[in-house]
Amino acid sequence: MKARITVTLKNGVLDPQGRAIANALHSLGFGGVEDVRQGKLIEVELKAADETSAKTELDAMCRQLLANPVIENYRVELL
Amino acid sequence: MKARITVTLKNGVLDPQGRAIANALHSLGFGGVEDVRQGKLIEVELKAADETSAKTELDAMCRQLLANPVIENYRVELL
Repeated sequence: MKARITVTLKNGVLDPQGRAIANALHSLGFGGVEDVRQGKLIEVELKAADETSAKTELDAMCRQLLANPVIENYRVELL
Repeated sequence: MKARITVTLKNGVLDPQGRAIANALHSLGFGGVEDVRQGKLIEVELKAADETSAKTELDAMCRQLLANPVIENYRVELL
């Protein structure tokens, strides 16, 4: 079973990486760029009895390791 | 206009970050994990005349800065 997890910063949390990318894009001449936010895309291949147990495990992986619940949101998609 | 860009390693390219995440998940007891691949999720807010010109600009941003065409694939989605 394959899953795609997206981890993004919560609104209002400062994103220095995104700011650096936006500045670099401006210096390359992309003046229309107003804001950039960078997150993580994690693709996981796992063995699971069924979709429900897979989702439960993936959720636990996010809470324990892949996302910082204080500043990040995560979304789990089974593919 | 808002766009979501996903940047992922091409198949066959070694992913040490993904390997490190997989090992960490195993040590947390998630034995069912078989493979992990980590990529980037970049959300860009930009001013553009229309969707076509937005897509052209975003494509150029990917080729010039956001993705390394030698080892990475990128996908642009207008939201």
